[in-house]
Amino acid sequence: MTVSSGQTYLAIPGPSVIPEEVLRSMHRSAPNIYEGELIEITESLIPDLNYVARSSGYVAMYIANGHGIWEAALSNAVSAGDHILVLATGRFAHGWAEMARKMGVSVDILDFGKNRAVDVQVLNEKLNSEPKSKYKAILMTHVDTATSVKNDIASVRKTLDEIECPALLAVDCIASLACDRFEMDHWGVDIMVAACQKGLMVPPGIGFVFFNNRAKERQKNLTKVSAYWDWEPRVNPNLYYEYFCGTAPTHHIYGLRTALDMIKAEKIEETWQRHEILSRAIWAAMDRWSLVGDISLNIENPSDRSHAVTSIRLGGENGTRLRQWLQTKSGLTIGISLGMSEPGDPDGDGFVRFGHMGHVNTQMIMALLGAVETGFKAIGYNHGNGALEAASEILSSI
Amino acid sequence: MTVSSGQTYLAIPGPSVIPEEVLRSMHRSAPNIYEGELIEITESLIPDLNYVARSSGYVAMYIANGHGIWEAALSNAVSAGDHILVLATGRFAHGWAEMARKMGVSVDILDFGKNRAVDVQVLNEKLNSEPKSKYKAILMTHVDTATSVKNDIASVRKTLDEIECPALLAVDCIASLACDRFEMDHWGVDIMVAACQKGLMVPPGIGFVFFNNRAKERQKNLTKVSAYWDWEPRVNPNLYYEYFCGTAPTHHIYGLRTALDMIKAEKIEETWQRHEILSRAIWAAMDRWSLVGDISLNIENPSDRSHAVTSIRLGGENGTRLRQWLQTKSGLTIGISLGMSEPGDPDGDGFVRFGHMGHVNTQMIMALLGAVETGFKAIGYNHGNGALEAASEILSSI
Amino acid sequence: MTVSSGQTYLAIPGPSVIPEEVLRSMHRSAPNIYEGELIEITESLIPDLNYVARSSGYVAMYIANGHGIWEAALSNAVSAGDHILVLATGRFAHGWAEMARKMGVSVDILDFGKNRAVDVQVLNEKLNSEPKSKYKAILMTHVDTATSVKNDIASVRKTLDEIECPALLAVDCIASLACDRFEMDHWGVDIMVAACQKGLMVPPGIGFVFFNNRAKERQKNLTKVSAYWDWEPRVNPNLYYEYFCGTAPTHHIYGLRTALDMIKAEKIEETWQRHEILSRAIWAAMDRWSLVGDISLNIENPSDRSHAVTSIRLGGENGTRLRQWLQTKSGLTIGISLGMSEPGDPDGDGFVRFGHMGHVNTQMIMALLGAVETGFKAIGYNHGNGALEAASEILSSI
Amino acid sequence: MTVSSGQTYLAIPGPSVIPEEVLRSMHRSAPNIYEGELIEITESLIPDLNYVARSSGYVAMYIANGHGIWEAALSNAVSAGDHILVLATGRFAHGWAEMARKMGVSVDILDFGKNRAVDVQVLNEKLNSEPKSKYKAILMTHVDTATSVKNDIASVRKTLDEIECPALLAVDCIASLACDRFEMDHWGVDIMVAACQKGLMVPPGIGFVFFNNRAKERQKNLTKVSAYWDWEPRVNPNLYYEYFCGTAPTHHIYGLRTALDMIKAEKIEETWQRHEILSRAIWAAMDRWSLVGDISLNIENPSDRSHAVTSIRLGGENGTRLRQWLQTKSGLTIGISLGMSEPGDPDGDGFVRFGHMGHVNTQMIMALLGAVETGFKAIGYNHGNGALEAASEILSSI
Repeated sequence: MTVSSGQTYLAIPGPSVIPEEVLRSMHRSAPNIYEGELIEITESLIPDLNYVARSSGYVAMYIANGHGIWEAALSNAVSAGDHILVLATGRFAHGWAEMARKMGVSVDILDFGKNRAVDVQVLNEKLNSEPKSKYKAILMTHVDTATSVKNDIASVRKTLDEIECPALLAVDCIASLACDRFEMDHWGVDIMVAACQKGLMVPPGIGFVFFNNRAKERQKNLTKVSAYWDWEPRVNPNLYYEYFCGTAPTHHIYGLRTALDMIKAEKIEETWQRHEILSRAIWAAMDRWSLVGDISLNIENPSDRSHAVTSIRLGGENGTRLRQWLQTKSGLTIGISLGMSEPGDPDGDGFVRFGHMGHVNTQMIMALLGAVETGFKAIGYNHGNGALEAASEILSSI
Repeated sequence: MTVSSGQTYLAIPGPSVIPEEVLRSMHRSAPNIYEGELIEITESLIPDLNYVARSSGYVAMYIANGHGIWEAALSNAVSAGDHILVLATGRFAHGWAEMARKMGVSVDILDFGKNRAVDVQVLNEKLNSEPKSKYKAILMTHVDTATSVKNDIASVRKTLDEIECPALLAVDCIASLACDRFEMDHWGVDIMVAACQKGLMVPPGIGFVFFNNRAKERQKNLTKVSAYWDWEPRVNPNLYYEYFCGTAPTHHIYGLRTALDMIKAEKIEETWQRHEILSRAIWAAMDRWSLVGDISLNIENPSDRSHAVTSIRLGGENGTRLRQWLQTKSGLTIGISLGMSEPGDPDGDGFVRFGHMGHVNTQMIMALLGAVETGFKAIGYNHGNGALEAASEILSSI
Repeated sequence: MTVSSGQTYLAIPGPSVIPEEVLRSMHRSAPNIYEGELIEITESLIPDLNYVARSSGYVAMYIANGHGIWEAALSNAVSAGDHILVLATGRFAHGWAEMARKMGVSVDILDFGKNRAVDVQVLNEKLNSEPKSKYKAILMTHVDTATSVKNDIASVRKTLDEIECPALLAVDCIASLACDRFEMDHWGVDIMVAACQKGLMVPPGIGFVFFNNRAKERQKNLTKVSAYWDWEPRVNPNLYYEYFCGTAPTHHIYGLRTALDMIKAEKIEETWQRHEILSRAIWAAMDRWSLVGDISLNIENPSDRSHAVTSIRLGGENGTRLRQWLQTKSGLTIGISLGMSEPGDPDGDGFVRFGHMGHVNTQMIMALLGAVETGFKAIGYNHGNGALEAASEILSSI
Repeated sequence: MTVSSGQTYLAIPGPSVIPEEVLRSMHRSAPNIYEGELIEITESLIPDLNYVARSSGYVAMYIANGHGIWEAALSNAVSAGDHILVLATGRFAHGWAEMARKMGVSVDILDFGKNRAVDVQVLNEKLNSEPKSKYKAILMTHVDTATSVKNDIASVRKTLDEIECPALLAVDCIASLACDRFEMDHWGVDIMVAACQKGLMVPPGIGFVFFNNRAKERQKNLTKVSAYWDWEPRVNPNLYYEYFCGTAPTHHIYGLRTALDMIKAEKIEETWQRHEILSRAIWAAMDRWSLVGDISLNIENPSDRSHAVTSIRLGGENGTRLRQWLQTKSGLTIGISLGMSEPGDPDGDGFVRFGHMGHVNTQMIMALLGAVETGFKAIGYNHGNGALEAASEILSSI
């Protein structure tokens, strides 16, 4: 018997659960693109995106996914032949690096592995070993969606400042924006990229490059910027179509407007705090589960863990087995491993990821953990007791 | 801080969770009501409603809620001055009885209280103490939504047959249809009433009177039947508008079509089995919770418990306190007490009800139980440990 | 080749075109029915329904279609054995009369035929020929949806007052509410019935009985009122469920809230004026079409024509032929004849009706008339020229 | 008084009217992106897109608007320093050319003005005056959305073949695909670009580059292709995410699937024929309107007119005046002028455009023309009579 009737719950690290308010606002006839509501709503997005990112700078919006936004950011920051340094803490930093290489950029990578955050000591040493102005930009993820590590952006900036490194600091917040605390201005981030389908709770289709005046000035010195990726007309449009270099993504604009209204209603500090508490509930469950058997969090140090995504090592093929049972029997979908292959597990079948970003609350986290507990029993996976009660203990203090 | 962002989960005993497929099918322009798709879909509902009810008889559809359907059934079964017998196992049987009284019907009630099923011995004695043909109809609920008791319909029919009682057997399946096993033909039910907003997973707005040939013949002898409630033209329409005695509920028809397709895809036997397993998970949790403190299931005997709704006694004002915490802090809404007042608890603040009817699965039951566990901790309600793991143990065997 | 791709336009006299705002507001998860938003919204409907009806009285809401509402009104106004007088100007008055007869009410009908309004002289004579207090109620339609006649309610009231007739004046505004000017208080209407699927722009499923204090007092004298139809608890509920005598029509409540917001935003006087101008455009087209051939408006006198629906005689089988061509070739659905059979046309194949109620504007009226003009040419129907330009002339003066 | 209640009709040359079936299919929870339905649907799009384009080649899909797709096509066809020739018949060819220039491509333009099609004689002369292999690609629009000219692609190919010009022929079908007949294989087009928000009836957000083996082979010789625009992994994905170089546009995929199903149900030949007849109705109206006053079609030669969009010259500021009246008074939105400035009309206030692409039928065209006729009268614009009847004459022959 299948027991898959009932609501499905997509607990993967993006696309995330879409609020029905957002879906509702996108269910509409094509709007007038010349004047009226759509234009006003589009303009209203910018200050609210900045509110979410704690930024006072610019926001270029693109019809694109995260990969597209990576290319957008690179196109406005570097040219073929330039050098950049990538601080890698998981697959996504490598992906961004690869994209730069295909543009003809020369890429150095400082690889911190798959289960720890950037070490600023190592960064300091690296930068001191190279000519001061070698790197046009330093790229890193705030949260790597694959490993679920969260990096300390402020300390990276401090390091750069201390050695007076002139490189632009470009940060990928695709997985973290509106989930993990992020302070664009205060942390000294020059360029930040994000997309709409994670903490912003909108179906995939729009991405953002946030940037400050320093980045804006630097961009003017580039010899060539592709017309589509050029951020300048997008943040300073003479005509409405320039916001998106062509036809605007009409329905996503309505969806994003609604999602931003929801975040503003909750207040971003509260949003971050909600993600933190829900994460602590997951970690509390993990503490119990891991008392017996092989299960472990991929990121050991709590302060290095994202509040948006959690990567978990189950060992063997237990990740895939658990996922499949959950998918077919419980109505829950959890995330596959990405880039976590290791000796004896070339395909990452021993890993899973939980997404807990955006539109998520107590009953959903208990659904996630409760279904996983059920799955453990169903596949005969050895694990400690008391995980659900430990999680509920955390959540009861809300 | 409130942590009420995220999806809300309405776990009350109706209206139940509506599948997104159903909502989607109802989001449409007004259809042609003269010819084409709508007419064909309307006709197609009848055999499929009969499939769900295990009936080979007639189905009259009404734009009405459950109370309206009660009146519809009564209007076709009895006249002012007739006598009926009501077998009461909770508030809803009393409600139906009251409706009959307002029609001028003379009502006798056999009241079995609020926490046990109909006792056919008592029924037997009652019927033997009255003139054989006194009662035109015997009314009862299959499941009483207030107490969550489930009655043994087949044994009531057997009792009636043994003493050759000619009364029509009329059963309220509003809470149970498509959740608890129900066999209209096999169990010898003459009239059955249901509505769309519980196991049928459609927003409130349509109800049904199922009836067999015996009931159909009896109705012809009534001196007067209200035009709106008269079931005859509805089951034997010459013109389309007679299906609903006037304008058809266009959008609900689309929604119901989709819901019935979902049930047929799962198969009704599987649907019943799913509800049974999910119920057993709830009961397993209750077994643990009730090891400490005052919590108890309202219905002690497992075979008398519904698989669609569960009434629970927490004592004191703990029902209301739990509900309020869940509503504001967890995203979960559970059912209030109905008609469960008792000495020291005039308003039923010590009771709650869980709805688990229709569109519900493993991850949702774990969400329900997990949020309740969290709520217990939050309000400081004394309870036994291990409830969630006990529930997951049941669900893992799916 | 079929050219039926593209949007369909349902221009029948109800159900009417549903605004996308209304559909959107109905696309939602089942709401909490115990507390919060739903309850507040339900309460808010009453004053706004009264705003639309220009009433300061009571509104009982029912899950029912128009026929159900007829029965609701009768159930609260008369008992079996009572006498009523029906002023018939089309099929719907006869339908209401028939419903009263099935309740055991004794019905006299003053039939004014199918193409003219109530003649108060005739009414005056009739009432003077009967005992003064014979009739408990006088029933009539404001607009008959079949004939499209509009009756002068105020003059009927004046007639009743002049002869001090104590009967309740009960008016069916199902087709006219929020389309044709209606003044419940000012015109002295005691009971008014309406439904949501016409001028109120919501899918079929809710109906309304509006009534004043006089009707409220009279109802208390009835010996018996059915529990479902009894308006008293609905307008004076102790508990939320009494608003709808059982489960509330959750999704329709959201839809109706949105529709009323739209009417309030336009203002009801403007809404009436819009319907009037659009109607005059249709009449202007008819003036030209009827210069040649057999086409004619069913109601000759402009002041007796509804602004919500227009019945048209084409003769022969041209009504059915036109409808079928429009349905399959143009994307437009127009209304069938109802109750308009005449010698040589037993099935009313020579008639059609245009619905222009609720969510309708200039471009839609030009679509309606333009598609009909096209249909005339396609089926070879003889008609005068210049109709569309005449209509556009009216609409240009908006 | 405003009479803007009622349905709005967006008759601009894209975004076009979205079928409710498409919107409905996009209103859904985020789907599993790892396995199951979404993956199967994505794969299914390719053959059906090829069916619409009459192509047997490759389709690379992008999250992008038309401008993004221009850049995608260029990125796979040419490198900085290459020469291309652009055949310009309106603003959009110039836009594509400008995008190439920003990539560092050397662009020659053959400008045929704003109201006529490409003249292959002129092309022939131009190509003969240049070194045979100078141009890597020749760019042109099939239909220019600004001027509404339709070019004869087959004759351009014939010209290239005759002089053995090795350039890739790249055609912009953004405005024309699924509206005007287009034969990718048969006409010898190497690269074709399109987007989803016109004839494909989906909200803006996805675009397509169609290409054949010749283009595919040429691309391999490029020294550098941006990772995001590189079409190779998109048409030959090893992993699902490569279809869209990152997160797939989940909801647009559902919408596009539905839209393609609608086109297949109608059959593409029928779709083209429908657009042709509807266009002829518009032209017939124009023939009458233009009998008096200044109004004229921008494209004089019927065989050079698009069936998807029609640009019209009204003169003076009458375009803007008409648009504003229609927008505020009739519920209809028509297209602004784009790039049509001329002496005395720097802002193109004398022009309007009608979009009639995708989801459009008889009643909609009559709405469009009827509202425009009304608008002419309202603004006092001098025009000939009989336009609507002339249009209906054409449409009656369907």
